[in-house]
Amino acid sequence: MGDFKPLPSKELHKNFLEKVVELLFNTVVFTTRKDKVLLWRSPEDLLKEFDFELGQNGESQEKLIQVLKNTVKFSVKTGHPYFVNQLFSGLDPYGLAAQWLTDALNASVYTYEVAPVFTLMEQHVINEVCKMVGLEWGDGMFCPGGSFGNGTAINLARFSRFPQVKKSGSKNLPDLVMFTSEECHYSIFKFASFLGLGEEAVIKLKTDEVGKIVPDDLEQNIIKYKDKNVVPLMVVATMGTTVRGAFDPVAEISAICKKHGLWLHVDAAWGGGLLFSQRYRTKLNGIELADSIVINPHKLLAVPQQCSLLLVRDKNLLHSCHSRGAEYLFQRDKYYDSKYDVGDKYLQCGRKCDVFKFWFMWKAKGAAGFASHIDVLMDLAHYFEEQVNCRPEFAPVSQRQYMNVCFWYLPRYLRSRPNVSDFHAELHKVAPQIKMVMANHGSVMLNYQPLKSLPNFFRFVSQNSSLTRNDIDFILDHIAEIGDALFLD
Amino acid sequence: MGDFKPLPSKELHKNFLEKVVELLFNTVVFTTRKDKVLLWRSPEDLLKEFDFELGQNGESQEKLIQVLKNTVKFSVKTGHPYFVNQLFSGLDPYGLAAQWLTDALNASVYTYEVAPVFTLMEQHVINEVCKMVGLEWGDGMFCPGGSFGNGTAINLARFSRFPQVKKSGSKNLPDLVMFTSEECHYSIFKFASFLGLGEEAVIKLKTDEVGKIVPDDLEQNIIKYKDKNVVPLMVVATMGTTVRGAFDPVAEISAICKKHGLWLHVDAAWGGGLLFSQRYRTKLNGIELADSIVINPHKLLAVPQQCSLLLVRDKNLLHSCHSRGAEYLFQRDKYYDSKYDVGDKYLQCGRKCDVFKFWFMWKAKGAAGFASHIDVLMDLAHYFEEQVNCRPEFAPVSQRQYMNVCFWYLPRYLRSRPNVSDFHAELHKVAPQIKMVMANHGSVMLNYQPLKSLPNFFRFVSQNSSLTRNDIDFILDHIAEIGDALFLD
Repeated sequence: MGDFKPLPSKELHKNFLEKVVELLFNTVVFTTRKDKVLLWRSPEDLLKEFDFELGQNGESQEKLIQVLKNTVKFSVKTGHPYFVNQLFSGLDPYGLAAQWLTDALNASVYTYEVAPVFTLMEQHVINEVCKMVGLEWGDGMFCPGGSFGNGTAINLARFSRFPQVKKSGSKNLPDLVMFTSEECHYSIFKFASFLGLGEEAVIKLKTDEVGKIVPDDLEQNIIKYKDKNVVPLMVVATMGTTVRGAFDPVAEISAICKKHGLWLHVDAAWGGGLLFSQRYRTKLNGIELADSIVINPHKLLAVPQQCSLLLVRDKNLLHSCHSRGAEYLFQRDKYYDSKYDVGDKYLQCGRKCDVFKFWFMWKAKGAAGFASHIDVLMDLAHYFEEQVNCRPEFAPVSQRQYMNVCFWYLPRYLRSRPNVSDFHAELHKVAPQIKMVMANHGSVMLNYQPLKSLPNFFRFVSQNSSLTRNDIDFILDHIAEIGDALFLD
Repeated sequence: MGDFKPLPSKELHKNFLEKVVELLFNTVVFTTRKDKVLLWRSPEDLLKEFDFELGQNGESQEKLIQVLKNTVKFSVKTGHPYFVNQLFSGLDPYGLAAQWLTDALNASVYTYEVAPVFTLMEQHVINEVCKMVGLEWGDGMFCPGGSFGNGTAINLARFSRFPQVKKSGSKNLPDLVMFTSEECHYSIFKFASFLGLGEEAVIKLKTDEVGKIVPDDLEQNIIKYKDKNVVPLMVVATMGTTVRGAFDPVAEISAICKKHGLWLHVDAAWGGGLLFSQRYRTKLNGIELADSIVINPHKLLAVPQQCSLLLVRDKNLLHSCHSRGAEYLFQRDKYYDSKYDVGDKYLQCGRKCDVFKFWFMWKAKGAAGFASHIDVLMDLAHYFEEQVNCRPEFAPVSQRQYMNVCFWYLPRYLRSRPNVSDFHAELHKVAPQIKMVMANHGSVMLNYQPLKSLPNFFRFVSQNSSLTRNDIDFILDHIAEIGDALFLD
């Protein structure tokens, strides 16, 4: 076949890649508690210290290894046990192995001919997860993140009610509104704008003291807008809100949606992984009543970034809403049944393979492995909350609903004088200062934020089941120590 | 810091990952011409032969290595020199090294605090590519593929003209149309639907004999729609069409856009990499006149999937169109200047780092390395076209504009009798049959498609600069040999 000349540079390249792998093993993959989570530099300093410049000529392999070392040196170790800053963390070795294989194969998952294993695997995984949701669930797609999945769901809701929108657009539709929690993810607003509905079409529903939608508020709003001749299109309920981890009462919301003819989308990007947990599955009660669901295995299940699923109850909807039948890719005279070409039901064309890392972790651990992972994390969250409740220097923000533990560190002068004037304003300044000190130490990365009228508070959340109760003690002690030093009486 | 217990499974995991890397070296990364491009199985057979099943319990490491071997065995080797099926191919060792590092760091590029190196690097690369386009170019974003980039550009065009759409949606806008080539990428239609404009708002412009928009047709259409009280919003010009590699005359189109007040988006997903080529840069003449551009480094420049850039002339537009200011992520009381938090100008929230592989390849090869890569590929395309023109068993579809060489294989009975009745219908059946035989051999993957009224033809295109003229001879001989055997007189 052709000429058999071996690639001349094979040994050179292999040698380089071996060095890279060794470097990654030594500095990233097996990071331990003895390592720092980050080596903090301000943006201005990093711009000076790291050589971002791109030149006309290439660099030597020695220099390139140094470049990789510096990249690692100044990057945050998101797999470190004390990276508890986001809704992702941890580094699963099987997930990583699968990513490395995915990269080496460099597939684009649109046609069976180009990605035979991965197109079938996607459908298999979608079917398996659908089964876990409910018998009648039909289809799904992998998305580049939950935001895109939520946006796609809004469009499916609109298309399902007004199929003419695909061809003739939204210009002749009635005014539409959709309802979601005031604690929902911001992607709902971003994509409402993108889709031409506008941010103002998103009506925020009040949440209760733990962060859940109040169903009565929903129904009153639906009636109010109907009376104004506005069409209530859909509800986006959240299972696992970003900050407080609240689960909206989906069964009740579904009943209201059915009564009034609204689409129900569930943003379970963060909570959806509980499908794998026999013990905590009940938190997802009612999810099967939705019309569409977003689940991000890269969050709770610690699959590497990104792995996000949009599931749709109606088997044919993704195809009828998105298909275009491009003839250069989805030829109708192929040498195999073109129903296996999944690409036309997607909005993306070329698309990175996100299924393999999830499938391979599932294969490696089994469903039972994911369930144990969740048990460990829930136990840690329970322990964290207990400690917050029983230690005088901490105060809970609201009752824990899930993995998220939201809490304040109280400086001593606020602890002893809770009625101090501008208590709220003082407390608001505490978390940012403690976070800055932790960043300077490189010790812990922990997020904080305000919420509604509440001043800045910390949110502990981890997806890394190698954490132990000792780690939690360490994190809380560390915060208290910094706080005590920062805020004198 | 905390407890210092080493991860108990470190050796186990390291050992496993080492085996995986070895497997990838031996079976994927250094694939040669002696290997097959693919081991063809029909979907029905692969479903039986590959164990897709996911169980309750995990598998042993030995079993998992076997699973990886099978995944590789049945996957297409897109890095193989004879994978000439899509607008991506090849496997760059520096790109792969960078991907492996990106995976190990598992960053999400939204805030400086979580991705310090990569947020700054994105801005640096965007600035560098902007400079190559034109002095006044301002900003950009990385996208999960060119389709998403094109869709985002449509929304920017709408927002730029009607900024109220972000808040109040498109309901009070006039009827809008946009113009693009009848040979444009299908993403324009998919995203016109998604954004609520509808497919019918996309007006297809006629192309000439080589696949370029005819500017007169554009201006006539603009006038026609204005007369109907429809607002012409934008033109999407293509630089490097998917099938024929045509470059629309952007400078002329820009003049018409300016005259009539239309936004000009250039889909240079395929052609944009020519920015790196001194020799072929003129093909992009006029690109600097656009308002937005999509360039996919994962196409011409052979950066691993996915790496796609949307550039925008107006420095502030991405932020003003997309920002939402989520307080849990983009806090305003951070310990660094929050202008370095790039995430709010994006539609995605969590986002995989796509910049590092591009930056690192650039660092490794230099701009000169990309330029040489392009020279080699253009020379190969030139040689391919020459061979097609001079060999009687092949016929060109139209004059080559770029890397794409579009051609027919002519069975002997059609060669000698060009006036045979249903010549067109007969020729239409040829390419699919030859492709099927090549798939069965696992020898070459080469795409075919119809176009406008033209019957199925092959499209040769490669982004793998390790190809030689011998390879091209081999591919053409191989097609001729199969064709001669399949189609008797």
